[in-house]
Amino acid sequence: MKPLMLSTMLATLMLTSAAIAQTPSWLPPADSARCPSKWGAGDERGSGNLMKPQTVLNAVKLIKTGEVIELSHPLNAAMPMVAGRVFDLQVKRTGAARGVNKIRPNEELIVAEMGQVGTQFDGFAHITHDNVHYNCLKTEDIATRNGFTKLGIEKVGMLMTRGVLIDVAGFKGVDTLGDTYEITVADLEGAIKKQNLTLQAGDAVIIHTGWGKLWDKEPARYAKSNPGIGVKAAEFLIAKDPMLLGADNTPVEVSPNPDPQLAIPVHQLALVVNGVHLLENLKLDELAAKNVSEFAFVMQPLKLQGATGSTVAPAALR
Amino acid sequence: MKPLMLSTMLATLMLTSAAIAQTPSWLPPADSARCPSKWGAGDERGSGNLMKPQTVLNAVKLIKTGEVIELSHPLNAAMPMVAGRVFDLQVKRTGAARGVNKIRPNEELIVAEMGQVGTQFDGFAHITHDNVHYNCLKTEDIATRNGFTKLGIEKVGMLMTRGVLIDVAGFKGVDTLGDTYEITVADLEGAIKKQNLTLQAGDAVIIHTGWGKLWDKEPARYAKSNPGIGVKAAEFLIAKDPMLLGADNTPVEVSPNPDPQLAIPVHQLALVVNGVHLLENLKLDELAAKNVSEFAFVMQPLKLQGATGSTVAPAALR
Amino acid sequence: MKPLMLSTMLATLMLTSAAIAQTPSWLPPADSARCPSKWGAGDERGSGNLMKPQTVLNAVKLIKTGEVIELSHPLNAAMPMVAGRVFDLQVKRTGAARGVNKIRPNEELIVAEMGQVGTQFDGFAHITHDNVHYNCLKTEDIATRNGFTKLGIEKVGMLMTRGVLIDVAGFKGVDTLGDTYEITVADLEGAIKKQNLTLQAGDAVIIHTGWGKLWDKEPARYAKSNPGIGVKAAEFLIAKDPMLLGADNTPVEVSPNPDPQLAIPVHQLALVVNGVHLLENLKLDELAAKNVSEFAFVMQPLKLQGATGSTVAPAALR
Amino acid sequence: MKPLMLSTMLATLMLTSAAIAQTPSWLPPADSARCPSKWGAGDERGSGNLMKPQTVLNAVKLIKTGEVIELSHPLNAAMPMVAGRVFDLQVKRTGAARGVNKIRPNEELIVAEMGQVGTQFDGFAHITHDNVHYNCLKTEDIATRNGFTKLGIEKVGMLMTRGVLIDVAGFKGVDTLGDTYEITVADLEGAIKKQNLTLQAGDAVIIHTGWGKLWDKEPARYAKSNPGIGVKAAEFLIAKDPMLLGADNTPVEVSPNPDPQLAIPVHQLALVVNGVHLLENLKLDELAAKNVSEFAFVMQPLKLQGATGSTVAPAALR
Repeated sequence: MKPLMLSTMLATLMLTSAAIAQTPSWLPPADSARCPSKWGAGDERGSGNLMKPQTVLNAVKLIKTGEVIELSHPLNAAMPMVAGRVFDLQVKRTGAARGVNKIRPNEELIVAEMGQVGTQFDGFAHITHDNVHYNCLKTEDIATRNGFTKLGIEKVGMLMTRGVLIDVAGFKGVDTLGDTYEITVADLEGAIKKQNLTLQAGDAVIIHTGWGKLWDKEPARYAKSNPGIGVKAAEFLIAKDPMLLGADNTPVEVSPNPDPQLAIPVHQLALVVNGVHLLENLKLDELAAKNVSEFAFVMQPLKLQGATGSTVAPAALR
Repeated sequence: MKPLMLSTMLATLMLTSAAIAQTPSWLPPADSARCPSKWGAGDERGSGNLMKPQTVLNAVKLIKTGEVIELSHPLNAAMPMVAGRVFDLQVKRTGAARGVNKIRPNEELIVAEMGQVGTQFDGFAHITHDNVHYNCLKTEDIATRNGFTKLGIEKVGMLMTRGVLIDVAGFKGVDTLGDTYEITVADLEGAIKKQNLTLQAGDAVIIHTGWGKLWDKEPARYAKSNPGIGVKAAEFLIAKDPMLLGADNTPVEVSPNPDPQLAIPVHQLALVVNGVHLLENLKLDELAAKNVSEFAFVMQPLKLQGATGSTVAPAALR
Repeated sequence: MKPLMLSTMLATLMLTSAAIAQTPSWLPPADSARCPSKWGAGDERGSGNLMKPQTVLNAVKLIKTGEVIELSHPLNAAMPMVAGRVFDLQVKRTGAARGVNKIRPNEELIVAEMGQVGTQFDGFAHITHDNVHYNCLKTEDIATRNGFTKLGIEKVGMLMTRGVLIDVAGFKGVDTLGDTYEITVADLEGAIKKQNLTLQAGDAVIIHTGWGKLWDKEPARYAKSNPGIGVKAAEFLIAKDPMLLGADNTPVEVSPNPDPQLAIPVHQLALVVNGVHLLENLKLDELAAKNVSEFAFVMQPLKLQGATGSTVAPAALR
Repeated sequence: MKPLMLSTMLATLMLTSAAIAQTPSWLPPADSARCPSKWGAGDERGSGNLMKPQTVLNAVKLIKTGEVIELSHPLNAAMPMVAGRVFDLQVKRTGAARGVNKIRPNEELIVAEMGQVGTQFDGFAHITHDNVHYNCLKTEDIATRNGFTKLGIEKVGMLMTRGVLIDVAGFKGVDTLGDTYEITVADLEGAIKKQNLTLQAGDAVIIHTGWGKLWDKEPARYAKSNPGIGVKAAEFLIAKDPMLLGADNTPVEVSPNPDPQLAIPVHQLALVVNGVHLLENLKLDELAAKNVSEFAFVMQPLKLQGATGSTVAPAALR
C-alpha cells in the first residue's frame, strides 16, 4: 500500500468546503493510494488469500477434545436488525398428499437480507467509499439488479484457520463493555498479554465485548449502539494480517463512532482499504465462559452468487 | 423399532379400498410400529445424535494435507428447482452516502425457500406420512404460520464426521447413471468393495451418481428425473447407522420411483421412519475425479428457527 | 337455504364432547343445510352475482357533483396488521443508465399478503368452516401451492353499485364506538331511520364505527380489538341481500366476539354460509364528516389469480 | 416549458465525446429547459392535475348501458415480465382451526414488483433522466430504502375521465401491428379520423396495437419487442394534454426504439419531461372488438406509499 499522504490531501480538500467542521479523525485514503491492493490488481479475495492448506492444518492441530462450540444465534423475526431489514419465514401450503405412501412435505418461504442478517459475514461488495470498493472496483461497473459480477460472497469458500478470542470484556472485568465504549489499542494489548496470546498472520481474530448477551434479552438496546473497536484498534489488528475480524456486536466496530463526522469507518478501513473480511453478531458467551483463547475456527459462507455477504453458522473446535 | 408386521397390515387394509391397484412395493410402517424412535420418545435429533466429540476426532484424523474440496453449487436464479420454488436476489437501494467518509453500503433482499433450495440439508419437519413426522410428532401440533415449534433445523448444529463417497457412477464405469436408474444393493456393495471401503456408524454417506454434472449444463433435465437409491438400497445404508445420506441429485433417491404408486418413499423411510437426515444437490465432481473415498465431512446448517431444512455449503477435507 | 335444524344437531354433538362449555351462541349450519348456495351448485360468485349493468346505472344516477371521496388508507410498513403478516417495500437497484438519453428507472419489490393487508376485500377462498368453503368447495380440492383453482379473487371484477353508509358512531353520538362494542340490530335500525335510508338488494353496505380514526394514530389498539357487527346484526344486513358488507375496522365484525367460544363468526356467516363479500379497513372519516349516506360505490379488486382477497382502493362518488 | 435549444446544446456536447455516433433522434431537454413544470415548482401530480369533478361528470355522461369492460390481465407467475422481475404467490399455512366454529382462514404471501407488473400504471418516481425526475426532483433527494418521499403513487388517487381508444391496428387492418412497428403521427391521425374522434384535454388516451393478444399465447414474444408509439407520435398526443397514455403492450412505446442509441425515450418524454402518466399492458381485445371509441375510464391505483407505480385493474364503462 502507498503512503497515506494523499488521504491527508483529500481531507484538506474536503475541509475547505466544510469550513466549520472539525478535522475528521480519519478518512479513507485516496483510491490511488490504496490500489492496486497488496494482493494485486484484479484480486477479489483480499484476506481470503490467507486461507491455504497449511492454515487448515494449523487449525486442525488445535482440535484435541472434539468439542464444538457454536458461534451463531438462531435466525428469527425477533432478532436485532438494522432498520429496514426483515426476516420473514412463512410456512407454505404444499398441496395434497402424494402416492399411496401419502407423503406430505412442508417447506417455508424466507424473505430476508440473507447476506446481512443474523450472525453474518461481510464480503467486499458490501461496502464502498463513495461507490468505490476494495481494489478500486466501482459499484457502477459490477452491480446488476440481481447481484454483483465481481466480489460476490460465493467466491470466498469455506474458511478454516486458527481462531483467537481477545476477551476485552474479561480483561476489563465486566460482563459487557459500555454502550458506546471504543476499545483502545491498550485494551487489546492488555487482553492479549493477560491471555498469553500471540496473533499470527491468517488468524480469525474474534473480540469479546460481552454485548452479545443482549441479543435476545434487549434487542432494541443491542441494535441502538454498541461497544467495539475504533479506527486505531482496527489498524492495530489489521497490521497483524488477520483472515477476518469478528465480534459479538452488529458492526464489529464501536457504533456510533466517537467522531460524529464518521459513519462506521472501520467498515471502510477493513473491507475497502485493506480487503479484510468482517464477521458480525457472533455468539461468544460460551467461548468466553470457557476461557477459550485459541481454537480451530470453521465457517462456511453460503455461495449466494453475487451477494454482499452471507448469514453464517461458524463454530469453534478444540 | 418394532417389527414391521403392522405396516403389512396397513398395506393390506389400504388395498381393500383400492382393489385394482397392485400391491405397493413399500409402505411406511404404522405409527405404532415406529414410535417412539430408537432415540427415545420426544427425541428431535434422530441421526444427529451420532454427532459427538469422538466423531469430530475421527474426522480430524483424516485431514492430512489441509485440502478443502467444496461440495456445494452456487445459489442463483438459474439453478434447478422443484416447481413452485424461487430464488430471487434483488440488490437494494440503500440511500445516500453517510459521514464525511462517504460510506455507501450495498445489500440484497433474498426471497427463496432457503430451507429447500440449492445444495440442501433436510430436517425432520420437512416430511410426513400423512401429516405425521419423525417420532410421531403431528404437523397440526408443531406447525405455526412462521415455523415449527419442534424438529426445527436450528437444533441440528454443525456436523463434522467421517465422510465416505460411494462412487456408483465410477463402479458402473459411466459419467452419469441413467435418467431414472435405481441404484441396487449390489451396486452399493460392488462400489464399496471396489473402493475398499467399510461403512461405520455415524458416517456421512455420500453417493456419487454423476447426475450433478447436469446442474448448470442441463438444469431442466436435472430437475425432471434422476438416478438414485430406491427403498432397498436406502434400507441397506440406513442399517449401517449413518449420520446422513447425501447425493449429487435433488432427492437423494431415484425419481420418479419405479413403483408408480409411490412418491419419493426414501424421504419417508429416512426422515420419518428412521430419523436419518438427507443431504441433496451435492456437487461431487471434484471429489469423484480425485478418487477420494474417505474424508472429513464438515457442514454448518443455518440456524433457521423452526425451518424444515437449510441450504448449506458443506466441504470435504483431507 | 335449508332450515338450520342440522346446525343445532351439530352443536349438540359437539357439546357432548365438551361437556363443561356453554352452548355456543352460533354455529355454522351443516354443509348439507347450506349447499348448494342460493346462486346454484358450482357458483363461485355469491353476492358478486348482484353486480349487473343496472346496478352500475343505479349508482351513476347518484353522481351529481363529480366529487370523489377516497375510502382507503395508504399501504406502508407501519399500518396495523394481523400478527404474522408483513408489508415490506424495498427500492431496488436497477443498474446503469441506458442509452444516450441516460434513462434510469426505479422500481420496488413488495413482499406482502397483498390479498389481506390494508383496505382489503375478502373473496371466498379466504375463509372456511373446517376447511369447507362457500358452496361446499373443499380447501383440499381447490388449493395449490400457488393459489386456488376456484373462488379466486380474479373472478370478481370491478364492482360499481349504490353504496350506503350506516353511521352507527354518528347515531350513538360518539367519535368511535368502544373497543369491543357489538353493534346491535337496534343500532342499525336506529341509524338507518335517523339517516332516512332504505337498504336495497345489491347495495355496498358500509358501517361507520369510527374505529378507523385509530389507523395511524393508535395502530396497536386498532389491531388488538374493535367494535363491529356481531352475528345478529350481520344476519339482519345479509337478509337485505347486499353486494358486500364493509366497515372501518379490520374484520368488519366485532372482535373478539362476545361469545368466547367463537372466532370471527361473521366471517363464516358472510363468506362461507351466505357467499357475501367483506370489505375491511375502510377509511370512512371523510364520508362520515360530510354526512354522505348514499353514493356511487366503485371498487376494482386486483386480478390476483387464485388469491383469497385483494388490497383495494375503493372510492365513493357523488 | 422553455424552448428546447438547451437540449440541442446538450446533444452537441455529448457527441463531441462520442464522435463516431450518429446524432440521436431525440434527447431530453436540459433540466433548466423543463423545470419548473407547467404545473408549477414543487408540483408532484403532473397530468393528474387534470382529474377534477368536471372530468368525472364528463365521463359519467358516457355511461348509457352500464356495461363494464375490464381492461386488465390476471396477475400470475406466467405473465410476461421484464427480466429480473417476479410474481410469486405462495399460499400460506395459517395454523389450526379456531373456535368451536372451527374457522380456518387461508391467505397468500405475494412477492412481486407490485408497482411494475401486470396491467400497470406508472408514476413519476419510476423514471429519470440521469437520476433527475419530473419537475427536476433528484433521486438522491427523494429515494429511501423503503420508498420515495416525493412523487409516490399513493398521491394519485382514483382517476375517472373520458377514455378514448385509438385503434391503430384496426386502422391498419391487422390483428396486431408488427413486432417492432413504430406508430406514426399519420397512423394516429388516420385512426382518429376513421373513428370520428376528437381528443380532449384530460382524456385517458388508449392505443390499440393488437399486441395484447400475445399476452398469454406468446409471452416470450410479447416481452421481447413490441409495436407502439415513438417520440413523434408521443409528442403529438402529449400536445393534446391527456391525463394518461396507455396501450396493450409493455412500455406503451415501440421497443426497441428504432434509434439504437435511445432506450425507451417516450418514458422520459412523458414521465420526466411532461409529467404525463403511462398505463401499460392493457387488455384491449374486448374494447376493440366492440368498436368502442369513447367510454368512461375508471382506474384506482393502489396507495402504495412511496412507490413508483401500481398494478391496476382499470375498466371502461359505457
